Parts: sequence; C-alpha cells; structure tokens
Amino acid sequence: MSKKNKLRIIPLGGLGEVGKNMMAYEFGGDIIVVDAGIMFPKNDMLGVDYIIPDYEYLKKRANRVLGLFITHGHEDHIGAIQHFVDDFSVPIYATPLTRGLIEGKLARNNAQHKAQIKTIQAGDHTKIGPFMVEYFHVSHSIPDCVGMAITTNAGLVVHMSDFKLDHTPVDGWPTDFAKLAEYSMRGVDLLLSDSTNAERPGWTPSEAVIGPAFDKVFSEAKGRIIVATFASLISRVQQVADSAAKYGRKMAIAGPSMVDNVKIARKMKYLNIPDSLIVPIDQALNMQNHKVVIMCTGSQGEPSSIVGRLSAGTNRQFDLKEGDTIVLSSHPIPGNEETISKTINRLLRRGAKVIHDGIAPIHVSGHAAQEEQKLLINLVRPKHFMPIHGELRQLMRHAELAQQVGVPAENTIVVENGQVVELVGRKVLRGERIPGDYVFVTGESIGDIDHDVMKERSQLARNGIMLIDISLDKLTGKLLHAPEIITRGFVSPEDAEALIPEVRTRIMELIHNGGIDDEKDLINAVKSYLHQETKRRPMVFVTLGKHK
Amino acid sequence: MSKKNKLRIIPLGGLGEVGKNMMAYEFGGDIIVVDAGIMFPKNDMLGVDYIIPDYEYLKKRANRVLGLFITHGHEDHIGAIQHFVDDFSVPIYATPLTRGLIEGKLARNNAQHKAQIKTIQAGDHTKIGPFMVEYFHVSHSIPDCVGMAITTNAGLVVHMSDFKLDHTPVDGWPTDFAKLAEYSMRGVDLLLSDSTNAERPGWTPSEAVIGPAFDKVFSEAKGRIIVATFASLISRVQQVADSAAKYGRKMAIAGPSMVDNVKIARKMKYLNIPDSLIVPIDQALNMQNHKVVIMCTGSQGEPSSIVGRLSAGTNRQFDLKEGDTIVLSSHPIPGNEETISKTINRLLRRGAKVIHDGIAPIHVSGHAAQEEQKLLINLVRPKHFMPIHGELRQLMRHAELAQQVGVPAENTIVVENGQVVELVGRKVLRGERIPGDYVFVTGESIGDIDHDVMKERSQLARNGIMLIDISLDKLTGKLLHAPEIITRGFVSPEDAEALIPEVRTRIMELIHNGGIDDEKDLINAVKSYLHQETKRRPMVFVTLGKHK
Repeated sequence: MSKKNKLRIIPLGGLGEVGKNMMAYEFGGDIIVVDAGIMFPKNDMLGVDYIIPDYEYLKKRANRVLGLFITHGHEDHIGAIQHFVDDFSVPIYATPLTRGLIEGKLARNNAQHKAQIKTIQAGDHTKIGPFMVEYFHVSHSIPDCVGMAITTNAGLVVHMSDFKLDHTPVDGWPTDFAKLAEYSMRGVDLLLSDSTNAERPGWTPSEAVIGPAFDKVFSEAKGRIIVATFASLISRVQQVADSAAKYGRKMAIAGPSMVDNVKIARKMKYLNIPDSLIVPIDQALNMQNHKVVIMCTGSQGEPSSIVGRLSAGTNRQFDLKEGDTIVLSSHPIPGNEETISKTINRLLRRGAKVIHDGIAPIHVSGHAAQEEQKLLINLVRPKHFMPIHGELRQLMRHAELAQQVGVPAENTIVVENGQVVELVGRKVLRGERIPGDYVFVTGESIGDIDHDVMKERSQLARNGIMLIDISLDKLTGKLLHAPEIITRGFVSPEDAEALIPEVRTRIMELIHNGGIDDEKDLINAVKSYLHQETKRRPMVFVTLGKHK
Repeated sequence: MSKKNKLRIIPLGGLGEVGKNMMAYEFGGDIIVVDAGIMFPKNDMLGVDYIIPDYEYLKKRANRVLGLFITHGHEDHIGAIQHFVDDFSVPIYATPLTRGLIEGKLARNNAQHKAQIKTIQAGDHTKIGPFMVEYFHVSHSIPDCVGMAITTNAGLVVHMSDFKLDHTPVDGWPTDFAKLAEYSMRGVDLLLSDSTNAERPGWTPSEAVIGPAFDKVFSEAKGRIIVATFASLISRVQQVADSAAKYGRKMAIAGPSMVDNVKIARKMKYLNIPDSLIVPIDQALNMQNHKVVIMCTGSQGEPSSIVGRLSAGTNRQFDLKEGDTIVLSSHPIPGNEETISKTINRLLRRGAKVIHDGIAPIHVSGHAAQEEQKLLINLVRPKHFMPIHGELRQLMRHAELAQQVGVPAENTIVVENGQVVELVGRKVLRGERIPGDYVFVTGESIGDIDHDVMKERSQLARNGIMLIDISLDKLTGKLLHAPEIITRGFVSPEDAEALIPEVRTRIMELIHNGGIDDEKDLINAVKSYLHQETKRRPMVFVTLGKHK
C-alpha cells in the first residue's frame, strides 16, 4: 500500500462535539469539506454570540479545497457558511431544501453573491478530484437530509451525520436502508456515525408520536395557541399545520428567520400547507382566539426571541392574552435548562398555560438512540468504526456499542477535534494533531476574543473592579488631591460609601509614610486591604500621575 | 371568627423554589421558623458563593421569634444556620442526626457556641407559645427526617418538607403513614407538600435499587473505585460500605465535610459501618487498587472538589490511576449540566472509567413523584393544599395533581416567596406581600452584592473594559503626555496592539481640536469609535487630570 493511497479524516468543529460542525477529508493533498456550522456558547463563554470551527488548516491549503458538501439545513451544519465563503471560492453541494435554507441565510447576511451552490439529490453522486461522493437519504428532524459515501483509492467511508431510523417520518421518506446495505456489500472500510444519543437506551420515538400530542393540545386549548420551535425545524411546522387544519385554526408565522424558512420550504414543496391555512400575523392578532395558532422561535427561552420577550412582557408586536397556550416544542440544549425554566416560570406567572416536553410528547429527538446506532452498524458492517457528533462521553459509549455488535476494539477509534485519522492500507490509524479549537464570533468580529480574554472577563465578573486615580507632586512626592476611587461590580453603592473613604485614607497614609513608589506597590497594598475587609479580590487599577 | 385566630404562613427562602430554604409561621405576633438553608448560585450570578433567604421580616420581629425547627440535615435546610444564629438567640429543634450535622457545620465555622440546640424525635411534640409542633418521620435521601404537624387555634397544618414514600429505605424506616392517617382523621386544614418532582410521572424508585447497581460496579471494577456524592447523602455512604464489605474492599473517606459527617453519623449509629471496613485515606492510597473504595465529594463536577481536581489533574493528595472507576452518585442539579459534562469528559480523557446516573441506576431522587404526591394528598385529605419546594412550574403542576385527587381548585393556593398565606376561619387566603428575595453571600460578606452589582458584573463580563488616563496642561489644555490606555477582557493582546494606537490618535485629535472638556465627552467619543470598529461596547473609564 503506497502512502499515496492515504485518506486523512479531519474532525474540525463542534466545541467538544467531534466533527459536529465541520469535517474534512484529504487525499493526496486534495480536500473536501463536509458541513460548515456554528455552535452556541456555553454559559462560561461570556459575551460570545456564536462559535465557528477553527479551520486555519484548510485556509492554509485553500487552493487544494475542492468543495463543501452539506448534509442538512440545521444551523450547526450550515450556520458558518457565510464565513466559509469569505475564505473559499468553491462549489457548495446541497439538496434542494438545504440549498434554499442556505440561500435564505446568505441573503439575510448580504452574502448571496459569494456562494456558488450546486443542487444535489439523494441517489446522485459527485466525482471531484480523487473523491467520489455519493449521497443517500437519511431521516432526521428536517427534510432532505443526506449521508455521504466517500470513495477514494484508500477505500469506502460512510459518513452518517445527524440521523434517526424513523420508519414514519413526517415527510414519509425514511432512511435509505437499501443503499446502506449496498455499501455493506461493497465493503465499508470506515463508518462515521452520529453519537448524540449514545447514552440513551432503546429507539428514539418516531416524529409520528408528535401529531397526536399536538392534536391533544389543539383539542383542549380554549384560547390562542403559540408554538415555539427552532426556525429550522421544518417538519414541526408541518405537524402544527396539520393539527391547525384539523381543528379549524389558521396559522400565522412570526419572526423573520421562521417566515423565511417556511416560505422557502413551501415554495419547494417540502411543506404541504395550503394558502388558505396561512394568515399574516397582523390578521391573526385580530382574529378570535380559538381560531388561531402562531408559530415562532424561542423554544430555548432565548431572551431576544418572541417567546423570551412574551415571558418578560416586552414583545412589541403582540402580548400574551388570557387563555393563551404556549407550546415549547424542543428539548433543552444542555446548558439552557436554567434559562428555559426561568422563561416557563415567567410565562406561567403572566397567566399563560405552558406545555413543554417534560409534561407532554410535543417533541422527540432527531437523533438515533442506542438500538438504532447498533442497527446501523450491523447493517453497514464496517471494518472500522469512528464515532462522531458527540462529546467524549458519548463517543466512548458509542464505541462500546460498536464493540457489542462485533466491531473489534482495535478497529474502533475515538478522537477529538483536531486529531487526524488516517485510512491507509485498509487500516485506520491515528495521524497528526492539528489545531482543532474553535473561534468566537461577537458582533462583527471573528476570533479576536481568545481564551485569555475570556479568562479576564471571568475575573472581572467574579469580583468586579476598583479604579484609583492618584496625582502626586513631582518634586515633593505629596498628593496633589485626594485619590479618586470608583468601583463597578464589586460592592453595593452603600457599602462602597463606607469602604472607599477607608481605602482613600489607607492610600494617603501609605504615600505619606513613603515607601510607595510605583503603581504595583499601591495595587498590592489596596488588594490586600480589600481582601482583608471583604474576602474578595476585585481587579484593582491605579493611575499614578506625577506632576508639578 | 376572630382575627386573633389567624395563622400567617410565610414562604421565605429558595431562589424561586418556594419555601425551600425557610418557612415561617406567625400566630398572634409569635413566630416559629422551619429550616434555614442555602441555595447555590445560578450560572448568571457571577462570583457568588451561595445564597441565603432574605429574612429581614423576621429580624424586625426578632423578639417574637420563638424557635427554629429543622426538618433534616441537608445543606438547603441547615446551611444558613450559621448566619441565623447571629441574628436570633432562640432554641433550634432537630433530630439527633440533624443535630450532629448542624453541630459539625457550626464547629467548622467556629460558631458552635452561638447555638442552643434541642434534640427532638419523630413522635415527640413541642409546645411553644401558641404553637404545638408534632414531629413525624418521613423517608428521604438522608436518615432522621421529619415532617411537622403544626396546630394553633387557627387549625391544623401539615408541613411536608422533602420526602419520598420509599417502602424500602436504606435505614428501614419508611414514612409514618399511620401518623399521617391520624392527622387526616383529626382534620387537616392545610397541607404543604414538596413539589420538586411534580413534573415526574409515576413513583420515584426506592433507594433499594441502588444496592444492586453498586454491586455491579464493584463486581466489574478491576482497579480502584472512587464514589462521589454529596457530603450530606449519608444513606449513600451506607450503600457503598455495604458493597465494599461484600466485595472485599476497604473504604476510605476523603474531604473534610464528608469525613466529619460520616464520623457523626457513625457515632450516632445512623451509619452501620464496622471499624474494620474503614481505613484512613493515606493507607488506602498505598493498598492494592482492587482492595479500595474512596468516597469523596464532587458529584456535581465542582472545580474545587476532589473529583473536579482529579479531572483537571490538580488534586494534591492523590491522582487518577490507570483502571480507576469513578462513580458520580447524584443527579445534575439544574444548571450544573455543563460543568458535570465537562468533568466527565476530562475524567475519561485522563483514562478513568466513569459511571453516572445517565448510564446506570447509581442514584435515585430523594423526592416523591406524582403518584406519591397524590397518595400523600389522598392519605391526609386536607381541606386546603399549598404546594411548596418547587419553582412556579412545579407548584402549578402539583396544584393540578391535588385537584385531580379531589381538592377543590378554590382550595389550592399557589404563591411565591414573600407572599403571605393566611389560615383564618378554616379558610386559606392570600395575605400581604413581604420581601421574599434572597441574599448573596461571597467570602465573608453577606448581602452587599445586590442585583445592581450583579448587573455591572454582567456588563464587565460581556465586553470587558478600557481604561484611559489623560493628563492635560491646566493652562493650555494641551496633553502633557500621550494617553495611557489599557484593556481587560475586551480584545486579544494582538488586536489591542492595533486598536489602542488608533484610539490614542483619536483622543489626541479630539483634544487638539478642542470641544472635549470633560470625561463624559471623551468616554462617549471613545465608546462610539470602539463600537464602530468592533461592534462591541466595553465599559470605558477615563481619568482626566489637569495639571500645570
């Protein structure tokens, strides 16, 4: 086996979730990229809007990047395309709905002209450089999802991004088992598979269970129904529309991203909603309460979303009404539990009825659970197995499952982002380590907040700051005026009133007694005094001017 | 019905969880207090160590407070006693184990001399002022828990704090159904009951299911076993000890709070662990791996706990070893999911095997689920029902359950902390609203961080700070030297290097062109420039000195 026949598999983005937002495949120097998505910040990532993969490795080889292949239209797989197109001028391959969603997103960011998108279909294939990429349908919580079979001289790799084995999906189009079986017969050298639910036993319930749950909500609600979900959860919109039709309600869509996505999906026939069912939001707000359902975003309690604003009483277009039923049709993303709970409590306090997935099956996961993961492995019968799309805890669990169904332990490989895996001579090996970190995006800036800045923010936030301005006479070394002191985020104004004069007196004494020559001495003296008095350590800044 | 026969029920502490940390009962001006616990801060409460109830209402009536009655020895019920004893010189009533745990806690804070504790037993009663308080046993995840039946001339109130209806608890002492039935026959005017699991259908599994789960862990582990749980989860220590004895391992306890609690519980015979089973931690570290189990704290992934430090490789006394099995024997407290997941991933990365409640039944809830809650209500048959110990979402669900089992809707009352409820003329009414907020504790200071300080911290943390020091010539208004500028938590050092000279130039131009007279003008100018360049809004501070 010549070294030339080496496929390098590079998981790049996902904030601990391996390859979730981006994977790259490199063969003989040529590169294809799968997905370009974003993550949302953890609670300790202060002031960050969102996070994109660190793809410096690819940028350094930009002239060898041949194309971007998208598995489906969720934010964590397409959200970074607007940044990707600034760095790479390559074709983007996507199924029709995914393409529509990407175009909508690029248009909202005035970047549509930068992308050259090519439409693909499940069953198609693309020959590009040394890669042959075949697309096959998988079911997930958005229509028109694909997995990819990537063939090079190194062998056949099956890339399963987000999927579930739903036999009764909303669009009636289940995962393509036959195609997977065909790959199995051809011989799959490596299977990469979605580990999100590797800790969940059993099967993930079908999207079909949601219909009856919504029917129950619709049959019981006396007033308006407001359903919140992700703007990209297209299937959910169909399910709500079906219940609305059944129970004689009109549907209105609120919020620009959801309005856009529904428009695209309806135009492309991925949503089957008659015109007669849809009313503009303005009209819906003037209709009888029991004749209306409003769909909007905010199922994660995001303060800036419609539901977040409704909970706080700050939504401009409309407010809660007596008898409203709010349905939060999603599952808390880990880390959002507190925010969601706060939002639910606020909605209840303001008089709404709230249905969430903790009390009714109005949401199911879009990801395969253990039995599906095992079935997939048994169906594909790969020589090697590499779990992706999960944190280490889920990856290791998924690797155990693979071993339970017969993949030898030495043929399962668990890596984290930035760890290159090599398929060479029909063997899978651990390759080099490249930067596999992530990049913070805030406002219009990308990447200029690093971990050190985040650490400083955390220090600022933990104890606040004290600023001290001191002017000394250049000649005598005496104070020209009393030190000026302000604090932020340290103590309450009342306590500051007591504490600041004390600090001022201390400083004046220190200077009077000499021995204080520079800012550092003063800072240390103040810090130690503050710690003694408050057992806290604010950041202390001194400006020491010497004047005549 | 004279107004004199009015019982005021006052839920005081719990950070959104009603009456979780403290409740007060007031009759004719006399007051008894039930529990004095702490909460841990939410993720957006920056730099807070813990939170205690705001009991200003009680402090203003300190001379009418007759006693503090403790239901059980968990932190959220006893953790604030060290502060309480500074404000009230009243007897504290607690069962033997609870008393031991309180004394241990007070001793660790050098406050043991401040408390006068009286030992009570389930089945006892205390007559105090206008109150008769009867204690009855309930099962929970710590031994020696009681509920209270409080009788005044206003009627009979049953106060169920944390409980479950476990038929096979670790200590073999189930909830006292007979006593509850007796109250039912006497006629209960108002039942207050634990709502923690009001969204959970079915029955909470018995603590008995944990034994076999630990047996499985012990039978499979080849190396050391390290079990982390709460220091106050005394029953869990017994269960681990039982498995250790069965599988020929010695048990060592690490960490001062757990060492203390185990010592107290063993001395008082609430833990049945022979001396021969226990070894000091130093000795355990030198024994063969498969002969040892170490119990410690850190099941919530707290960075400063032993498990937190083991995951980071910074534990001084001992480090992880090849083949270690770490058992996290608790359920994530809402808001801790991210930290726990990070800790699990780190432990796995460092080579440990990790067992948590997501993959094995090594923890069960200590709180009643819906069927138990309904059974309690059916057993007590109260005239009125008031859910406590939950956020609004759980309280409202619990009230619905009460209505399902026959309590009329108009006889269920859902309130939040600070909302007084009155029992008068055998009717339950909504009374006045008093401050029912909470108080932050950081370091040695109590309450000097208010919500405004927290808001400032959040501002500091979101975008960082920029400090600018400017000296002008008093006479000419010209700069005496170039402005000195530093930033923290704003941009990376490299970006600061590019940005700061620009800001400096801007300021010099502004001053040169005149029109800038005070710090405010300068701050606004800098802020708007920074926002234009970075789309971010750091806090900007200017010290403007005028000298000659």
